[in-house]
Amino acid sequence: MTQPARHLTATALAVLTTPDPGDFRTRRVESLTVDLQGIPGDRHYGFTRPAGARERWYKSGTPIRSGRQLTVVAAEELAVVAARMELPEIDPGWIGANVLVAGIADFTLLPWGTRLFFGEGAVLVNEGDNAPCRFAGAAIARAFPERTGLDMLFVQAAKNLRGIVVTVERAGLLAPGPITVKTPKQKTGGTLL
Amino acid sequence: MTQPARHLTATALAVLTTPDPGDFRTRRVESLTVDLQGIPGDRHYGFTRPAGARERWYKSGTPIRSGRQLTVVAAEELAVVAARMELPEIDPGWIGANVLVAGIADFTLLPWGTRLFFGEGAVLVNEGDNAPCRFAGAAIARAFPERTGLDMLFVQAAKNLRGIVVTVERAGLLAPGPITVKTPKQKTGGTLL
Repeated sequence: MTQPARHLTATALAVLTTPDPGDFRTRRVESLTVDLQGIPGDRHYGFTRPAGARERWYKSGTPIRSGRQLTVVAAEELAVVAARMELPEIDPGWIGANVLVAGIADFTLLPWGTRLFFGEGAVLVNEGDNAPCRFAGAAIARAFPERTGLDMLFVQAAKNLRGIVVTVERAGLLAPGPITVKTPKQKTGGTLL
Repeated sequence: MTQPARHLTATALAVLTTPDPGDFRTRRVESLTVDLQGIPGDRHYGFTRPAGARERWYKSGTPIRSGRQLTVVAAEELAVVAARMELPEIDPGWIGANVLVAGIADFTLLPWGTRLFFGEGAVLVNEGDNAPCRFAGAAIARAFPERTGLDMLFVQAAKNLRGIVVTVERAGLLAPGPITVKTPKQKTGGTLL
């Protein structure tokens, strides 16, 4: 079965970046200007990056094409993760997100190749779900020093809910406001061989 | 429904490139060495490219991130297109393909983000189906001067059968032989809003 491309309307609630490339965490800003390599000055800026623990099929450090220029998370999904972890909230900045959106169900599982159009501004391309890691979990744990084990709990609680990694297809502005989400034509079901 | 990642085994039958970057058509070679921007010297080499007619949602000529470094076609699909066009064959070189594979059903509709591993050599990432164009159709028409209208017929006959565009995730060798095809975890069915 071939599923046609779809256009959905959603909302960007916030954009975030880090004032310090050495710091994993991000903070809300009014807007961000991105180019085709990502956020200038950001730790994830670049067409390429070294392969890491998430790409176990490559020797660590191998230069690979970067699909991880920015990360995008969904407010609805973070609320589910917070509830599972019995936390009042998870701030998108604690886990290093660059964009917070709302209005799309199953956001983390949007098909690869889905485009997010920020009006006449930037266009981002979905390059897959962002696997939860202890690094992000540890950042959440720091906000709740009275709790233990939050880092590992996050890895479990955030499975398929931690948002996506994206690259920039068209340079421009990222700012809060309405966005258009275009999913690609998809093959669903059936066999591949 | 979430469909897990799958590993499939297939075969690369041929690799092709053009001796002349001005020429759209490609010819078989023993092997190709690609880097993270594609085939050095090729007309599609680069991290970026100008938007064209296929990206009608961008102003023509806008610099965008390139997802079209190489193209890959499937022998089974070209055979179907040739039969629909009542042609004895379609040579992958006529339509500018860089890799000819066999063994994957519905190859053109493989999910975005599917990886093609050429053993310890290069790794290619599926960036979507390649829309058939009159340019490729015209190259086929040139091989059959006694037939008319083949260019437009190709556009219809090759829908969802014209193969995919890819980028290079890991640099290395592309050569005929066994390849491994890894589809990403996918969301199938369901609603997005």
